[in-house]
Amino acid sequence: MRTAVLASGRGSNLQALIDACGNGSLPIKIVCVGSDQPETVALKRADTAGIPTRVFHMSDYPDRQAQEEDILSWVRENRVELLLLAGYLKVLSPQFIRQVAFPILNIHPSLLPAFPGLHAQRQAVEYGVKVSGCTVHFVDEGLDSGPIILQQAVPVLAGDTEDTLAERILEMEHRLYPEAVRLVALGKVERIGRQVRILQ
Amino acid sequence: MRTAVLASGRGSNLQALIDACGNGSLPIKIVCVGSDQPETVALKRADTAGIPTRVFHMSDYPDRQAQEEDILSWVRENRVELLLLAGYLKVLSPQFIRQVAFPILNIHPSLLPAFPGLHAQRQAVEYGVKVSGCTVHFVDEGLDSGPIILQQAVPVLAGDTEDTLAERILEMEHRLYPEAVRLVALGKVERIGRQVRILQ
Repeated sequence: MRTAVLASGRGSNLQALIDACGNGSLPIKIVCVGSDQPETVALKRADTAGIPTRVFHMSDYPDRQAQEEDILSWVRENRVELLLLAGYLKVLSPQFIRQVAFPILNIHPSLLPAFPGLHAQRQAVEYGVKVSGCTVHFVDEGLDSGPIILQQAVPVLAGDTEDTLAERILEMEHRLYPEAVRLVALGKVERIGRQVRILQ
Repeated sequence: MRTAVLASGRGSNLQALIDACGNGSLPIKIVCVGSDQPETVALKRADTAGIPTRVFHMSDYPDRQAQEEDILSWVRENRVELLLLAGYLKVLSPQFIRQVAFPILNIHPSLLPAFPGLHAQRQAVEYGVKVSGCTVHFVDEGLDSGPIILQQAVPVLAGDTEDTLAERILEMEHRLYPEAVRLVALGKVERIGRQVRILQ
């Protein structure tokens, strides 16, 4: 399964995916990695793994639509069959989503539908929840609202800050994302409306 | 700690509280049980346990305010120090909340802030989450929005219906509610704004 990854930040989820491919537990091929940020750690990780990279920096485009059209050309050139968002901080437009026939997956650091959007871990700490977690979901036209593939709970501990909670959730993300992608790649994920069934 | 319980339904959480008092693991005394519904199972359970009951049926009052004033008189007559909602389906008004100096606790069958309000388990199944749970929280003036004391995750399994999920969550509720009440009764719960800290 020819896979593209979009990342904005330090790319630790990208690394988890690269590592899972490397040890044979993830039957996909990451054929390209893109970022809306130049010189991110994520791009360096891709370089190190020998994966071609591309930067889609907003300053290089007249508007967001032009940027997304460039991303669309890029995934088409690379004959991508699966697009993974891994800490990609831009929301893809409904126009983009509608033009893509293959699945787009995202990982989010909360138990959706709680705490969508940016700073999910900060939202969780400020709300005062005792359980948070992470969610891998199909991307739809809403904000973090797509059908859920896998979720994993993570406890919020006494004295947790945004950072300590984010670190604990991130460890779980590194396991959950490759597992969800593996299930999708193996054809074990059946999606009917909002319901996602994992076939055994 | 002189405790009142309000319940509307079958009262299984009330029973869990009664049982925990009975086996000595819960240092409170349930001095009265009320319901907005006549002839509920909850009231029968209280009767069986020898706890005085009262019905606050809406049809007996000109309006909701009159009903709540009667509930307020009832808790005052009983010198209540803690009010527990256990499947009580009416939302207490902000006026009621403001007039009560002692803590009011509620248990809700989801990981709040996800799925507040009625039919939380149905909401969870329809949304397609893979993890739900239950929450014990202080009651504030909002709907299921108060500071969280304890939460426990419960997996949503393939093929779960509203009923099967509700049953699995309910088992957890029966453990979580007595535990949260125990912590409050022992003075181990410190509340600062939205943050609830459990003292060891």
